[in-house]
Amino acid sequence: MDDPLVIAGEAFSSRLITGTGGAPSLDVLERALRASGTELTTVAMRRVDPGSRGSLLDVLARCGVRLLPNTAGCATAGEAVLTARLAREALGTHWVKLEVVADETTLLPDPVETLDAAERLVDDGFAVLAYTSDDPVLARRLEQAGCAAVMPLGAPIGTGLGVLNPHNVELIAATLSVPVVLDAGIGTASDAALAMELGCDALLLATAVTRARDPELMATAMRHAVEAGRLARRAGRIPRRRHAQASSPVDGRADLA
Amino acid sequence: MDDPLVIAGEAFSSRLITGTGGAPSLDVLERALRASGTELTTVAMRRVDPGSRGSLLDVLARCGVRLLPNTAGCATAGEAVLTARLAREALGTHWVKLEVVADETTLLPDPVETLDAAERLVDDGFAVLAYTSDDPVLARRLEQAGCAAVMPLGAPIGTGLGVLNPHNVELIAATLSVPVVLDAGIGTASDAALAMELGCDALLLATAVTRARDPELMATAMRHAVEAGRLARRAGRIPRRRHAQASSPVDGRADLA
Amino acid sequence: MDDPLVIAGEAFSSRLITGTGGAPSLDVLERALRASGTELTTVAMRRVDPGSRGSLLDVLARCGVRLLPNTAGCATAGEAVLTARLAREALGTHWVKLEVVADETTLLPDPVETLDAAERLVDDGFAVLAYTSDDPVLARRLEQAGCAAVMPLGAPIGTGLGVLNPHNVELIAATLSVPVVLDAGIGTASDAALAMELGCDALLLATAVTRARDPELMATAMRHAVEAGRLARRAGRIPRRRHAQASSPVDGRADLA
Amino acid sequence: MDDPLVIAGEAFSSRLITGTGGAPSLDVLERALRASGTELTTVAMRRVDPGSRGSLLDVLARCGVRLLPNTAGCATAGEAVLTARLAREALGTHWVKLEVVADETTLLPDPVETLDAAERLVDDGFAVLAYTSDDPVLARRLEQAGCAAVMPLGAPIGTGLGVLNPHNVELIAATLSVPVVLDAGIGTASDAALAMELGCDALLLATAVTRARDPELMATAMRHAVEAGRLARRAGRIPRRRHAQASSPVDGRADLA
Repeated sequence: MDDPLVIAGEAFSSRLITGTGGAPSLDVLERALRASGTELTTVAMRRVDPGSRGSLLDVLARCGVRLLPNTAGCATAGEAVLTARLAREALGTHWVKLEVVADETTLLPDPVETLDAAERLVDDGFAVLAYTSDDPVLARRLEQAGCAAVMPLGAPIGTGLGVLNPHNVELIAATLSVPVVLDAGIGTASDAALAMELGCDALLLATAVTRARDPELMATAMRHAVEAGRLARRAGRIPRRRHAQASSPVDGRADLA
Repeated sequence: MDDPLVIAGEAFSSRLITGTGGAPSLDVLERALRASGTELTTVAMRRVDPGSRGSLLDVLARCGVRLLPNTAGCATAGEAVLTARLAREALGTHWVKLEVVADETTLLPDPVETLDAAERLVDDGFAVLAYTSDDPVLARRLEQAGCAAVMPLGAPIGTGLGVLNPHNVELIAATLSVPVVLDAGIGTASDAALAMELGCDALLLATAVTRARDPELMATAMRHAVEAGRLARRAGRIPRRRHAQASSPVDGRADLA
Repeated sequence: MDDPLVIAGEAFSSRLITGTGGAPSLDVLERALRASGTELTTVAMRRVDPGSRGSLLDVLARCGVRLLPNTAGCATAGEAVLTARLAREALGTHWVKLEVVADETTLLPDPVETLDAAERLVDDGFAVLAYTSDDPVLARRLEQAGCAAVMPLGAPIGTGLGVLNPHNVELIAATLSVPVVLDAGIGTASDAALAMELGCDALLLATAVTRARDPELMATAMRHAVEAGRLARRAGRIPRRRHAQASSPVDGRADLA
Repeated sequence: MDDPLVIAGEAFSSRLITGTGGAPSLDVLERALRASGTELTTVAMRRVDPGSRGSLLDVLARCGVRLLPNTAGCATAGEAVLTARLAREALGTHWVKLEVVADETTLLPDPVETLDAAERLVDDGFAVLAYTSDDPVLARRLEQAGCAAVMPLGAPIGTGLGVLNPHNVELIAATLSVPVVLDAGIGTASDAALAMELGCDALLLATAVTRARDPELMATAMRHAVEAGRLARRAGRIPRRRHAQASSPVDGRADLA
């Protein structure tokens, strides 16, 4: 596997992590997941009955993706820790995407509760992928707390505004040693490519695909976009210049010599 | 061929048109061209000796790309018309990428000379792909003059600044019936994806690939980026919202039902 | 008069040129004009009866502003030239703001007709202030045609989108010798300040003031904004840096010594 | 006093708070302070000898500005609390601008230490103006902790990058009840105007003025810019439109009737 993404010791060839919310049907979701090439998919665990095994899990199993339970809907560290434990028991995974949101209007992550929950979950043996704002210091603190990955937002969940502060995201990616996964805000393919160009190791998106007019087509677009951004990052882009520079020399026959 | 690009009656499956300037060697260029998947490549014809057949042409022939001679280095309509005729004779193609630049510092296209040259070349039976500013009225006038494609710039040649005025480029793409090919200014993959998302039918780039640290890798990135942007455009992106919208419903077991 | 704006030999202490369209009443307009500090105001001359003297002209006379008739509503060079001549006869001024728009939907200036009209009006002794796109080459051609000022747009008329392409506007301001007046697109005070910081010599706006919720207050805001941007340009801003730099040294008592 | 800024019960007619770092001389600083119209100026207290009264304090006294000691250079809540207490004793003010930075490279505020220090200082009777990232949830938590004002950064200190994330700053200003003072990142006048247009109640800047080529002129520019942005906010700007809208009606003689 060339250039794999490694989180908590596990290698993935795809750098596109998907959510499942917002899909018009399980059938559309399945086609979108397959088109995306994703290998890791997050599902909301809040209030799930551990005994239940519904068709969403069947779809994910058929697609061969690894489950990443999340704590969406939790507003305190305590709720998030409890939810993560229920998920571990129900789904047999010690991975968790930690989300503790401050309110239902902005769905922005609560920095204090998130950091508290991260510390407790790491202590409890979880591989924690922590959703956070794009505050570079907070991101560093989550890494220091032992998180397996840090997931700064590009923009608030569901807004499709892209990466509002590329400066911060680039700084986070440059500073942290654990994988940085851009999470939330992606609206379209160029946003995804940009996130990868800024140095993110992967990205997570849901509604940009599931609520697109054609989710399967958009999933394919996102697969290409993540690949494009990753390769462009590795390839080393040309510098930005204020002034023009000719690509076609015309002082002789150089171009046809 | 699904979703082909059609210019002057010719269909292409790749929407990435390449220039050849700036490559460190013909070998690197060949590998980059193959990686890009391009089917149409522009070469500077100014002062070329019609009898000469150099190794650049050999490379292009081996890659199976169609030649698109350009009039780079011309400063007047007269020079451009003469150069196009020489190219037609030398290379056996009536296609020409029309470039008439106003000065050597900015390399910006001269609107008056370009429009004049376009009219004369169309009269003379050429398929004219006209390089122009992103002025939407000028773009429309070039279409009215009979151009086979209109090529607004994203930013000045070689700057890598991307698409400086997405509003204009989107308006041009929405208004014209002939293919709109974004030309000049692309710096990295997300720029290419954005140009396609704005509705451009194709894009042309040279130094973003040839002067990247690893041209072959960047060529692969650009191939993915053009595909990503085109698919995202067709897939219909989610609207931008100012406020958050949850992707993971937590009011019940919907996600796992 | 410190740092005056000089157009066609006339000096102005205000760098804010105003339009009158869109005001809810003449009374509101008068208060806004006074608050703006403007000394030059443009009025649409199309189809005006030379014998008529309406209350708008009375307002402008009371405010002591100089009249700048414009050719709004003209679609060809011929119409614009005729309108300018009627205006000269009716209002006794050889100044004209030349506008030739390509269509009623975008209201974008037509480059070919504008250039043609500019040449004819200059020949006829007019002081021509030419409304144009932000194409730097076209702007230069208008200067070469003898225009007294060149007026690139920031964004299409009435959109309030600000300066869509600062790169072009800065290039125009750096290149031309005649005054560069940003015209159209201004939405709010920061747009006005930015235009001046880019090097424009003045700016023209109408609906940003006349259609604001409180036109008089917005006129005051714009007066301050133009002053702010002009002074900031002259003061020489600090460079943009990617990384932090402390303003409060803490290595000793330097700050309190 | 029309439209005063009120912090901790004190009213100011100027909404421009200044720092003193970076000035080439005390004389230049004094002229810049006077030109700015500021009524509140922050000074670094770290390691200051309470018995010392240097010429900087003399300058501030002559300018009639209120002193706002800051905790620049502190890396922990404990250091910041100690510094604030020393400042209170030395300068006889219970106001403090709280700064706890995470490292000397980015100078970004540490969210955990800042929140901790804020709580302790509020308990101790201080009026706390807290420097923070633009994380809207953290800003809210600082308000809940009893801060007298919350001071989100526009960009890292000294970068002159302006407001990197207008979306966050606007959200903070719309959400909080205490004054929001944009702090750090301002480079030029349009940045200052924008910050005020986003709803900030005031702004603090230092090097944008002290390190400008002409600090006094830039201070004047900033005074106008803050006024412009504040007035524009109150005046209610026109909406942004994608398409043109004429300001000069040409269907009759309306404009001259």
